Amino acid sequence: MTRDADAEDILQLAEQLIARPSVTPVDAGCQELLGERLQSAGFELESMVFADTTNLWARRGNEGPVFCFAGHTDVVPAGAEHAWRFPPFTPTRDNGFLFGRGAADMKGSLAAMLIAAERFIRRHPNHRGSIAFLITSDEEGPFINGTPKVVETLEARNEKITWCLVGEPSSTTRLGDVVKNGRRGSLSAELRVFGIQGHVAYPHLAENPVHKAAPALAVLAATEWDQGNASFPPTSFQISNVHAGTGAGNVIPGEFHVSFNFRFSTESTAAQLKQRVSAILDAHQLDYALDWKLNGEPFLTAEGELIKATSAAIHKVTGHETLLSTAGGTSDGRFIAPTGAQVVELGPVNATIHKVNECVEMEHLVQLTDIYQEILEQLLC
Amino acid sequence: MTRDADAEDILQLAEQLIARPSVTPVDAGCQELLGERLQSAGFELESMVFADTTNLWARRGNEGPVFCFAGHTDVVPAGAEHAWRFPPFTPTRDNGFLFGRGAADMKGSLAAMLIAAERFIRRHPNHRGSIAFLITSDEEGPFINGTPKVVETLEARNEKITWCLVGEPSSTTRLGDVVKNGRRGSLSAELRVFGIQGHVAYPHLAENPVHKAAPALAVLAATEWDQGNASFPPTSFQISNVHAGTGAGNVIPGEFHVSFNFRFSTESTAAQLKQRVSAILDAHQLDYALDWKLNGEPFLTAEGELIKATSAAIHKVTGHETLLSTAGGTSDGRFIAPTGAQVVELGPVNATIHKVNECVEMEHLVQLTDIYQEILEQLLC
Repeated sequence: MTRDADAEDILQLAEQLIARPSVTPVDAGCQELLGERLQSAGFELESMVFADTTNLWARRGNEGPVFCFAGHTDVVPAGAEHAWRFPPFTPTRDNGFLFGRGAADMKGSLAAMLIAAERFIRRHPNHRGSIAFLITSDEEGPFINGTPKVVETLEARNEKITWCLVGEPSSTTRLGDVVKNGRRGSLSAELRVFGIQGHVAYPHLAENPVHKAAPALAVLAATEWDQGNASFPPTSFQISNVHAGTGAGNVIPGEFHVSFNFRFSTESTAAQLKQRVSAILDAHQLDYALDWKLNGEPFLTAEGELIKATSAAIHKVTGHETLLSTAGGTSDGRFIAPTGAQVVELGPVNATIHKVNECVEMEHLVQLTDIYQEILEQLLC
Repeated sequence: MTRDADAEDILQLAEQLIARPSVTPVDAGCQELLGERLQSAGFELESMVFADTTNLWARRGNEGPVFCFAGHTDVVPAGAEHAWRFPPFTPTRDNGFLFGRGAADMKGSLAAMLIAAERFIRRHPNHRGSIAFLITSDEEGPFINGTPKVVETLEARNEKITWCLVGEPSSTTRLGDVVKNGRRGSLSAELRVFGIQGHVAYPHLAENPVHKAAPALAVLAATEWDQGNASFPPTSFQISNVHAGTGAGNVIPGEFHVSFNFRFSTESTAAQLKQRVSAILDAHQLDYALDWKLNGEPFLTAEGELIKATSAAIHKVTGHETLLSTAGGTSDGRFIAPTGAQVVELGPVNATIHKVNECVEMEHLVQLTDIYQEILEQLLC
């Protein structure tokens, strides 16, 4: 194919995916579309449906090492559709950009992965090892029946991924300027501080949980949890929601609800953070209940074959160096890394994700395909 | 009348009032009922309607001193009617108690006042000074078009009240055990602390207003505002409502809303409290907005003719001493006291007010009528 024909192929596949309104956990036929092309390229398909979530595990080859593209077909809701320049599920090309919900997060990446694999296989039908795809329809949602369950299934039969490239939009201003080689851990909690409800005119008959908790919250907000390390920024604590009161101005609230979240480095463990929070609350003699949710342990892929191949491919295609980062939000990489896989995240510029007028630069999708293919060349030839 | 016939008259009037569902600001004909009997007893009536609120000013006599019964016909909503033993607006006698919304707060008092005045006038048709009634249908509501407007009208024509007896349920366990001779001031505020909203994964791009405000709230909660005095407990500060956050666990809130209320003694002024709160917030370098609402200045009726007559009447009827108190919630006394009137509050036991199964002991209404009449005897004979 000429480069133009090739570019058109990538864009059309991205458009076909965007036109399927696959809001979490709905797949809307995206995996069927991808699966047909993967099957034609010699992949064995395995659909894994768990509750409301559709997952696809596809593999070409029976040997190791296993290179896996990981991604998700689901998208976040479009929000106020009237605020979009073009209808969110009607892919639209405009001034060098492809618009639509999922264009950058991450249907553009899915198209690039698929076509990179097809091209690589055409050139190297007898490549070494295996190529795999791990695709879920629940990355943006509660992450219960998606990647975690697929990984569980693979682990149960001792099927291992050597290298995993997650197509999350890692780039900030230029394609490939940032590759994520790990993520901080995420630990959330719902704190309820108990007092005794009463009338503000009779404070001696009540116990104000906001008054009791305020000094403890001040300490939590001021605490240095760790100093981070070369790969991770310091652990951060943030209160996301607080609520107390009946709405009436003359009632002392009986309970105070506080939600907070840690993004934590490998210098702290979830167990340590829990213990330290409890110690602070106890020191303030609060009557409280804490419900913890560990959203993900931190993980880090050290320098190695995958990072080397990724950096080299970016340099070859774009001429630029790349920066390794562990900043930002969570991704499904956190479920794959604990199996021992090397994991990196590389995808388009993330400036418009989860917003109205989500878009991706069309030339970036073409280059991203080249980069993905080059990584395969480096690792499986 | 015999004592039994007299008791029946008091109870029937209370029942007629309770049967009128006068939820704030609706009067439901209560003032018409009272007005007819007051007119028959020689009172001149003046209905003062302001917006949604009906008020009655009734006076018998043109000379001073002026003894005024003050009260309200409105009641708080019945709430969950199915939770009541008897329908809230169907007055029901049971086991010595009269049940119904308003039985204790304060339709029982209104019946006692009216019949006390009738009996006093029958005995002393040419009593000295004047007897007045100041009745509103908005004491439980926003207190804008009720007593404040009536007082404003009286002040404009220089019509003065010498002694005012508010029929609020002041008693705690025994009729007349507590008389309120003043009330603390009430000062409310809505505080908004401003930060910068953002994603919890990128705290350096955001500014968490809960984190910034927590130490300031801790200081506010721990501050001793004053130590009170012989007549007032110390000024108290209570946070009644707090809110921040979008509900999402991964968003740093952009604003933090805090409602709080002072109940303040005569040792502090509203201006001082405002200044001290601002100084604390400023010391914590908060970006904030404060909306203050002064619900009422504190007032105190010192020992004098009214308190002396009230205590003596309680002792004569019940055989017990009474306790002067400034504790508890606000009442319309705060609007009358600033005119220079001596003000006390004396009414039935307040254990069931604003609750389901509100009730008043029937014998207490009979005794309360005797007490009210005895106060008139002491002051206007």
